[in-house]
Amino acid sequence: MNTQRIDRVRANLQARDLDQLLIVDPLSIWWLTDYYTEPYERLLALYLPRTGVPTLFVNRLFPDASNTGARIASYSDTDDPIPMLSAAIDPTRPLGVDKELSARWLVPLMQTGAARAFVLASDAVDDARAIKDAREQELMRAASAVNDEAMAWLVEQVRPGVTELAIAEGLLGTYRRLGAEDHSFSPIVSFGPNAADPHHEPDETALTAGDMVLFDVGCKRDWYCSDMTRTFFTAEPTEHQRAVYETVLRANEAAEAIVRPGVTFAEIDLAARRIIEDAGWGPQFNHRLGHQIGLQDHEPGDVSATHDEPVQPGMCFSIEPGIYLPGDLGVRIEDLVIVTEDGCEVLNRYPKGAQIIG
Amino acid sequence: MNTQRIDRVRANLQARDLDQLLIVDPLSIWWLTDYYTEPYERLLALYLPRTGVPTLFVNRLFPDASNTGARIASYSDTDDPIPMLSAAIDPTRPLGVDKELSARWLVPLMQTGAARAFVLASDAVDDARAIKDAREQELMRAASAVNDEAMAWLVEQVRPGVTELAIAEGLLGTYRRLGAEDHSFSPIVSFGPNAADPHHEPDETALTAGDMVLFDVGCKRDWYCSDMTRTFFTAEPTEHQRAVYETVLRANEAAEAIVRPGVTFAEIDLAARRIIEDAGWGPQFNHRLGHQIGLQDHEPGDVSATHDEPVQPGMCFSIEPGIYLPGDLGVRIEDLVIVTEDGCEVLNRYPKGAQIIG
Repeated sequence: MNTQRIDRVRANLQARDLDQLLIVDPLSIWWLTDYYTEPYERLLALYLPRTGVPTLFVNRLFPDASNTGARIASYSDTDDPIPMLSAAIDPTRPLGVDKELSARWLVPLMQTGAARAFVLASDAVDDARAIKDAREQELMRAASAVNDEAMAWLVEQVRPGVTELAIAEGLLGTYRRLGAEDHSFSPIVSFGPNAADPHHEPDETALTAGDMVLFDVGCKRDWYCSDMTRTFFTAEPTEHQRAVYETVLRANEAAEAIVRPGVTFAEIDLAARRIIEDAGWGPQFNHRLGHQIGLQDHEPGDVSATHDEPVQPGMCFSIEPGIYLPGDLGVRIEDLVIVTEDGCEVLNRYPKGAQIIG
Repeated sequence: MNTQRIDRVRANLQARDLDQLLIVDPLSIWWLTDYYTEPYERLLALYLPRTGVPTLFVNRLFPDASNTGARIASYSDTDDPIPMLSAAIDPTRPLGVDKELSARWLVPLMQTGAARAFVLASDAVDDARAIKDAREQELMRAASAVNDEAMAWLVEQVRPGVTELAIAEGLLGTYRRLGAEDHSFSPIVSFGPNAADPHHEPDETALTAGDMVLFDVGCKRDWYCSDMTRTFFTAEPTEHQRAVYETVLRANEAAEAIVRPGVTFAEIDLAARRIIEDAGWGPQFNHRLGHQIGLQDHEPGDVSATHDEPVQPGMCFSIEPGIYLPGDLGVRIEDLVIVTEDGCEVLNRYPKGAQIIG
């Protein structure tokens, strides 16, 4: 177990006046114990009391967990793990529960009266995970360095007639050649008007001369995620295209320029949003500015108008303004940043000035 | 919307004396509405009252759902969807909830008193999904036909020095060439003693002369999953190896032989388990005999000693006995079957008699 991280979570529990927490997110469990398995429909849970030894609930089919330092409670496919969980939980106190805990387990735990109350408390872990330590920051940099190289490869694939899907399908092999293990999310490759859907899935659309091209891609390397978007021209841009592009770029740069400890997520969102609104495309920037990132591509605590907390050193998130004009085009420019003591470090080095490719 | 399927779910609700159900499993929603999206941390939910029009809750960033026939309740990233859900739910009646509903949504719904009680009721959908109609059975056959061909490809890859990972990494391309879209689960390729871990993940282990080889693989084709295991010899088997293999094969065949409507899942499990126990390896068959399968590789209702319900025509599940001897070997032989009016149809045609390959 990582006692330093467990202590940080326990301090968060104390601040919430909670004595016990049930964690089920496999990545949170890995982050605290170095033990990882994907449980699918079976139960994997870490019971963390504010003092004393945590208990890890594992199916006997899972990999061996005995070297984690946690107390191990193992069960087989014919056992019901609910009574085992109930026996560990203090029924006289509220139980903090992971937001990922599914009704499959939560409803029976409630029915057996396992705790005095059940309160959402995975933010005790999420808030700790949000502050990346020095080692984690190194890994975030390394994953984004791979992503920068992958973007160069993507650009080389752009030629008339190539399909979105053909490019997207070659990306995983490229990531692996560059030392990453996997995508951090399903890659977005959008040609022309397809980019007006921020979540467009690559399809058989072939590149037509003059199409703009949007790549929103990320990899996982040593557990940590990267995520970057660049938008390119394949011909001399029209004045309209250039105006949209430059507005998004200015929004991206304005947001990155104000990031420093104490500034709120909402203020960062506003810095980008105001530039797009002033240019007249406010309604066409129809999503939050960004999201935190680490072991998962999307981690809790978004960069949006409704998130009033200040950013802190070690936090890592995306800055990804966009303008989406249905039937016409879509532009998004996204970097990852890590908050430093007096500003932020932009992890992505791939250039973001207007480029004609293909 | 698929009114026939919705009617089957509503009949199940009636049998459970429930008036309303909240479904969040994206595949269940697809199965009922033909609408699919992967919501990640956002809310996708189908509220199904026993009478009247269902309501689909979608984020504005999701694909358009307006042609589903459901009432659409859309929200944006800065909205809280909980009050919208609460407004749809009848607070005077219990609400059936999907086992996949996460605490992120369930706890606030409880706190706002959205329903009189919250009960696990996804079996109302799962029980309906468990009975495959004629079209679904065709798709299950087609996915398993691809898997049979993929097994032949896997066998061709076996030669001294090849690694588990190298074979596993080539499988996705093979599935795609054969018309499938994806794996249905992460493929298991195990050489020699690695096969003694039923869930071994392919690694850099290289094939040594005489190793036994286990492949447990499956694909998704047109939404439906296949799943098959075969174990091979790469040299003339020892008497011990042959005895283990033949015991597992007899267990597989004995279980398949008794499947017919009215026989319980537990009886099918026992038919295989008794043969392995009689041969003295009972403790080394340390998992359930099988699992139901369809849109997901593992669907609810396993083939195990604790599942006393009778099987019904149209149900599809795996029969996968195994014997695992740590440090020595592992053998598993798995087929998918569909229950027919008077027995079962075995979907996998790949031979399962002892074979020496490589």
